[in-house]
Amino acid sequence: MDSRTMHTHTCGELRRADIGQEVTLCGWVWHRRDHGGLIFVDLRDRAGVTQVSFDPEHSGGSAFHVAETIRPEWPVRVRGVVRQRPEGMSNPKLATGNIEVLVSQIDVLNTSRTPPFQIEDHVETSEDVRLRYRYLDLRRPKMMANLRLRSDFTFAIREALHGREFMEVETPALFKSTPEGARDFLVPSRTQPGHFYALPQSPQLLKQLLMVGGVERYYQVAKCFRDEDLRADRQPEFTQVDVEMSFVDQDDVMGALEDVLADAFSRVGVTMACPLRRISYWDAMDTYGTDKPDTRYAMELHDVTQLFSASKFKLFSGAAATKGQFVKAINAKGAGTWPRAQIDKLADVAAGFGAKGLAWIAFREDGSINSPIVKFFSDDEMCALRAEMGVEHGDLVMFAVADRLAADQILGGMRSHMANALGVERAGHDFLWVVDFPLFHWDADSKRCASEHQPFTQPDEDQLDLLESDPLAVGSHTYDFVMDGYEAGGGGMRIHDAKLQMRILKLLGFTEKRAQEQFGFLMEALGFGAPPMGGFALGLDRVCMLLTGSDSIREVMAFPKTSSGSDLMSDAPSEVSSAQLKEVSLRLL
Amino acid sequence: MDSRTMHTHTCGELRRADIGQEVTLCGWVWHRRDHGGLIFVDLRDRAGVTQVSFDPEHSGGSAFHVAETIRPEWPVRVRGVVRQRPEGMSNPKLATGNIEVLVSQIDVLNTSRTPPFQIEDHVETSEDVRLRYRYLDLRRPKMMANLRLRSDFTFAIREALHGREFMEVETPALFKSTPEGARDFLVPSRTQPGHFYALPQSPQLLKQLLMVGGVERYYQVAKCFRDEDLRADRQPEFTQVDVEMSFVDQDDVMGALEDVLADAFSRVGVTMACPLRRISYWDAMDTYGTDKPDTRYAMELHDVTQLFSASKFKLFSGAAATKGQFVKAINAKGAGTWPRAQIDKLADVAAGFGAKGLAWIAFREDGSINSPIVKFFSDDEMCALRAEMGVEHGDLVMFAVADRLAADQILGGMRSHMANALGVERAGHDFLWVVDFPLFHWDADSKRCASEHQPFTQPDEDQLDLLESDPLAVGSHTYDFVMDGYEAGGGGMRIHDAKLQMRILKLLGFTEKRAQEQFGFLMEALGFGAPPMGGFALGLDRVCMLLTGSDSIREVMAFPKTSSGSDLMSDAPSEVSSAQLKEVSLRLL
Repeated sequence: MDSRTMHTHTCGELRRADIGQEVTLCGWVWHRRDHGGLIFVDLRDRAGVTQVSFDPEHSGGSAFHVAETIRPEWPVRVRGVVRQRPEGMSNPKLATGNIEVLVSQIDVLNTSRTPPFQIEDHVETSEDVRLRYRYLDLRRPKMMANLRLRSDFTFAIREALHGREFMEVETPALFKSTPEGARDFLVPSRTQPGHFYALPQSPQLLKQLLMVGGVERYYQVAKCFRDEDLRADRQPEFTQVDVEMSFVDQDDVMGALEDVLADAFSRVGVTMACPLRRISYWDAMDTYGTDKPDTRYAMELHDVTQLFSASKFKLFSGAAATKGQFVKAINAKGAGTWPRAQIDKLADVAAGFGAKGLAWIAFREDGSINSPIVKFFSDDEMCALRAEMGVEHGDLVMFAVADRLAADQILGGMRSHMANALGVERAGHDFLWVVDFPLFHWDADSKRCASEHQPFTQPDEDQLDLLESDPLAVGSHTYDFVMDGYEAGGGGMRIHDAKLQMRILKLLGFTEKRAQEQFGFLMEALGFGAPPMGGFALGLDRVCMLLTGSDSIREVMAFPKTSSGSDLMSDAPSEVSSAQLKEVSLRLL
Repeated sequence: MDSRTMHTHTCGELRRADIGQEVTLCGWVWHRRDHGGLIFVDLRDRAGVTQVSFDPEHSGGSAFHVAETIRPEWPVRVRGVVRQRPEGMSNPKLATGNIEVLVSQIDVLNTSRTPPFQIEDHVETSEDVRLRYRYLDLRRPKMMANLRLRSDFTFAIREALHGREFMEVETPALFKSTPEGARDFLVPSRTQPGHFYALPQSPQLLKQLLMVGGVERYYQVAKCFRDEDLRADRQPEFTQVDVEMSFVDQDDVMGALEDVLADAFSRVGVTMACPLRRISYWDAMDTYGTDKPDTRYAMELHDVTQLFSASKFKLFSGAAATKGQFVKAINAKGAGTWPRAQIDKLADVAAGFGAKGLAWIAFREDGSINSPIVKFFSDDEMCALRAEMGVEHGDLVMFAVADRLAADQILGGMRSHMANALGVERAGHDFLWVVDFPLFHWDADSKRCASEHQPFTQPDEDQLDLLESDPLAVGSHTYDFVMDGYEAGGGGMRIHDAKLQMRILKLLGFTEKRAQEQFGFLMEALGFGAPPMGGFALGLDRVCMLLTGSDSIREVMAFPKTSSGSDLMSDAPSEVSSAQLKEVSLRLL
């Protein structure tokens, strides 16, 4: 460790073994107690807390007299001798809880106004106030621990990648606007009036160009920008660990990534057992109702279509008789004891996931059954249903009737909702791959195929002849990394053939002219001997959120923005002078 | 190493010890030679080059027949057996030069159009063409080595910082416009019409807020943005290694930085002997004529004012008699042999550094003297001059007459020019600190003091009473890191007292209202117990340029822009749709 002249130790490191030593500490006055004629101060820095005490009888009382004036959040430097805390005064909750420092000299390094909220982990303050004074919010030990974990994990993943011969390459933030994905943030050019850069939504095209350029193994911890409405837990700028490899097939990439991720997680104390489980997209949808399943709990979806094929309940038997329609069910254990009114409200929840209604059967603890539909079922049907769903007293079985994807999505939503409502335990972390996504999905708005991942994804080579005739049947080389029920990362193999890339863009509705304008430079590059390539991007903010047990990515960002995109601390975005606007040849509407 | 299914080795690693082994390689066809009925191909990947050979008699000739069709820059995969090259066919310049791979199977992974320039290190191509096809330019071994060095050095410095308990914290790219420094790049907000973010010129304010927030030891490899005219070797976006520390004094910060930098440089094979030499700003100016001296060669500036105090040459003696005027000289060894016409042209060079003319004396190899001014000098003056300047045959002594700073700058410029013109050897790397910059310099345009470093720099504590009365005399806690005659980094201690910060802003011409609008959030934060703090920023692009022996930072950036700010590959910046502009409430002028 390099020398420190202003302090000899941090506030987190003194122990019994240091008793008798003279030390100098720097930190903020946290709590102050006057007790028995002495003053006790909890001195806090980023490493921890040390109790320092002031005695009017010690060193002529000068330090004591200063201590009488100090207030919370003043930064101070103290010098003194480490001593054992008196009998019964130890604090076993504190790493430094056996000792204190008897101060002989104190220097006030600065004063502080009274903070608008207490610097404590569990403080009742609106998030807006926390963001307005983020520099105070960061002093809370939990926030400091979050920043430290993020720093440690980011370094761990860099170390894992660097050690495996990945090269970090910085790609530009001022790049070309390709508005086909999310909305771009634009940056007007001053020297080229009427022209704009765009901030990258991801370095996707640039990393593919790096593969054409022979980099072979690339990574970057990259800032990405999307000007989307910030509903849910989104931020206008976010960070992804971006990776790309050449001369590889899908198994090479996934193997390398598993190796890197397991290494990085282990460096922050999290075990990721390899090889990871791989679930195909349709298995994930059919079993968990989502392409990002949390498999720490079961509550799996069951296809009960055939079971009700002859049912008097026409909704079910009608579906069974219709091609492409399914009756699916989940069993929410414990919810069968809920009062009828509470169960009835679940129909609204299901409607949020696309259901037109919600059929259900509550198996009461006393063995009775409560259900609006059970009267239509035969004993055989009930018996088969109980067996299929593993029914016990206290269970609530819910049904969805729809086409495959819709039925999956309704029950996937209900599964997650019920797990939260029932407080289903989800201990530890859950990692898996979801693979084999379809190349396209149907976009009802544009009445056209849209890319399931992105337009540069490699289709299954043996299904290329279906591209025009049955595009929705074409598979792809894709893989999502799912952690604790979140899509924590995703990737795929890329098209490295210029003609195939143009064919895909046309299927997505591009004219040849427009495709050339937007992506001509990519296709030109592919024509100069692009190698087979594939890669991945890990959502760093989200992974750190999960690793710290936070409920928002804002808790793992130093200076996040509000849902309206504001920085409440600096008041950005703000008005600029008309001269600044004129320089970039713009005026306000 | 993780598994690779597509290849068993890189093109750089096979040696004699591998003879007899069956291997699979992937790479690009570089050179192809048909010789003695065989085909020889240099296969290139980022790790190196391996000769692979094709024999029509081997494995039924199938690989040979494919090899007849392959062209430069096609990516291929080959399988074959490593064998010794025939007697006299080894290539000692190549790490793999003792072996070749006799190919039994070749897969063409893609074809390539003919590149617009050859993929060779020494290729005569305009930089515009290189940038237009940057992905091909990057395939040149020198460019690939530059990217790798940059990746290695960046990782080394991260490792050095992380190992010393610095926390990496990401600060936002969408921040507030503070247009007092260089020009900001603006980013219009869609959700808040008429409001703009700015891309950060540096994370300066944010890292100071992190210190207020208790981070104590921060670093970030940060993208910075300046919308300046790109004369010289500038880019609109560049990268700095940004560092800040709390509870420190200047020696703490400089000591920590020396430690980190020496560690990082050593990891890329460069020795930086510590402690580094420290030169004060005025010593550097007076001795080398610059605040970023290259001390690998002498050619130091000499103050000869007093020597000519009684001279008949009125230009010199007049200066000696005038307070604040100086006569200074340098001795360019070897230039004394230049023809008169060549020497005369130096006056134009000196004019570029602010000189009104250039007095000089050429000491010819034959002992004669050639000079327009020497006729005015007494024998004693010449004798004293020879002694002071260590004159030998072949020397050219040049003079500047001006005030201290101007004389320094003229001769500093000439010193550097002459070193280049004479090809003065500058081997190895040269590291030093320049310290103790004045807090302000006089800005002739605004007729006002301007910050020498930046407005947040801590003045010398014992000169605070001079701030208003004699501001140019006030020193500061500042340090620049100079490498090979370039300002490679700079830093200082920061003001952590809100009132002092406001006082400085007023001295810089801010009204209280304007200071509050721009920097009120900083001063508010300082009022909540800001600790003593200081930091540093290292120009990563420039350091990598010097480490790779490149003559431009563009050689160590994957995708640099032209001097007009264009990306020639993607054609950014480009026009955007009127719908995109309308969304951000703007129209073109």
